[in-house]
Amino acid sequence: MASLPPIDLPSGATGSGAFDEPAEAESASALFDYLLRLGDDALILGQRLGEWCGHAPSVEVDLSLANMALDLIGQATHFLGRAGEVEGIGRDGDALAFRRDVLDFRNCWLVEQPNGDFAQTMARQLLFSTWQKLLLDRLTGSSDELIAGVAQKAVKEVTYHQELAAEWVVRLGDGTEESRRRMQDGLDWMWRFVPELFVMDEVSSEMSQRGIGADAGSFREDYHGIVRAVIEEATLELPKDQRPILGGRRGHHSEHLGHLLCSMQFLPRTYPDAVW
Amino acid sequence: MASLPPIDLPSGATGSGAFDEPAEAESASALFDYLLRLGDDALILGQRLGEWCGHAPSVEVDLSLANMALDLIGQATHFLGRAGEVEGIGRDGDALAFRRDVLDFRNCWLVEQPNGDFAQTMARQLLFSTWQKLLLDRLTGSSDELIAGVAQKAVKEVTYHQELAAEWVVRLGDGTEESRRRMQDGLDWMWRFVPELFVMDEVSSEMSQRGIGADAGSFREDYHGIVRAVIEEATLELPKDQRPILGGRRGHHSEHLGHLLCSMQFLPRTYPDAVW
Repeated sequence: MASLPPIDLPSGATGSGAFDEPAEAESASALFDYLLRLGDDALILGQRLGEWCGHAPSVEVDLSLANMALDLIGQATHFLGRAGEVEGIGRDGDALAFRRDVLDFRNCWLVEQPNGDFAQTMARQLLFSTWQKLLLDRLTGSSDELIAGVAQKAVKEVTYHQELAAEWVVRLGDGTEESRRRMQDGLDWMWRFVPELFVMDEVSSEMSQRGIGADAGSFREDYHGIVRAVIEEATLELPKDQRPILGGRRGHHSEHLGHLLCSMQFLPRTYPDAVW
Repeated sequence: MASLPPIDLPSGATGSGAFDEPAEAESASALFDYLLRLGDDALILGQRLGEWCGHAPSVEVDLSLANMALDLIGQATHFLGRAGEVEGIGRDGDALAFRRDVLDFRNCWLVEQPNGDFAQTMARQLLFSTWQKLLLDRLTGSSDELIAGVAQKAVKEVTYHQELAAEWVVRLGDGTEESRRRMQDGLDWMWRFVPELFVMDEVSSEMSQRGIGADAGSFREDYHGIVRAVIEEATLELPKDQRPILGGRRGHHSEHLGHLLCSMQFLPRTYPDAVW
């Protein structure tokens, strides 16, 4: 995967930037950032899957996608709520979800990619859920009680997401000529966003060393083994390595995220004091 | 055009509704509503055309569409600014453009329809600009000084928009098999939104009677003659009459308008105190 030099964007001015802060603040800032990553991945993918509501190929699939979206938004609520506590300036999960602008989001590029057709959505889901499941497996042993607790519940949900996505990739890949072409196109498109999932930077390294997070490198081989097996069973081609695109963890995103936030945040932005 | 019963939506709770107001307030309210209609038509179509920026089939077309968008947004600024004065509660043109939600918009359904492909955009433009030009022609004689002044400048701009759209409809209609099919599809789709342009309700009738607005019925024949001539020159079929869709003037809109407003209003909603 690393044969091509990555397209990496310059460090943002809005990073967690603990330049002259004391060590304690630095650690809190790393934990805050790490919780945002976990929460934003789930939130943004949940929002994307929610866009299918009422538009999926069948009622059963419509419900599956909506249920996955709800699982993910539930996970996001926990991670972002905890991020707000760690930050300690009075922002709760809702404020973090609905009052941040695009540069302050910490999700990976994969989850913000447009749904495209159903095959592209399933390609994204396979590539993300496989990674998320392996990560959550490890996070069940996190020294952070909240992260461990959420991971224990979420890993069961995500195991199902991964299985569902794998089934669809096989069914479409080993289906008609058109479904096969679309499934291959979807995988080829999404493949460039996989390397970002395995980047270990200062934040993720610190979290791993402190027993809060996990070392993504430790399950990189597993990940590629699982994904490769699904793609082979689907009689599809393993996508060629492409120039990886990095930067989501530091707030650099594709144009798509801004449009997603426009919709997702419209209600709380327009009616700031609205309550249920 | 009136052979099919229209799909009309029930009166909104948010209409200009001058139920128990004195006559003066009623008139002010009708003028306010009329100015919103003029301004919102221009604003929403301007925003739609702006979406083409950087995506048009050629650089020249990209600039044409962006220029049309700017013309329309300029017109909107004048009409909405005057609407704010008439309303007299401190909202200026920006507040009316960026702080109203979907039910308070008064544009017709035609202008909020998605761009689709370039042919669909040109179909919308022909059908709207032809109407807008005929309307502005009459509004140059409005007894409202601001409306007359804006109309005198705008009618020149819109004459150009109409000519440009007509040229493209002919070029695509009388072009390749694919361009012809797309142009016909675009016209067929947009045609259902034409009848709304000629509805005269209490507001437009009062404005016409007071010499501020114009009677759309007075140029309905002209409109259909001009549009028919363009469609014939393009060797296309006049679209069949469809069930007309009404209600935009009372705040009932297609789902598309909400998404358009999400993008258009994001910046002022997110940064309420931002200044240039």
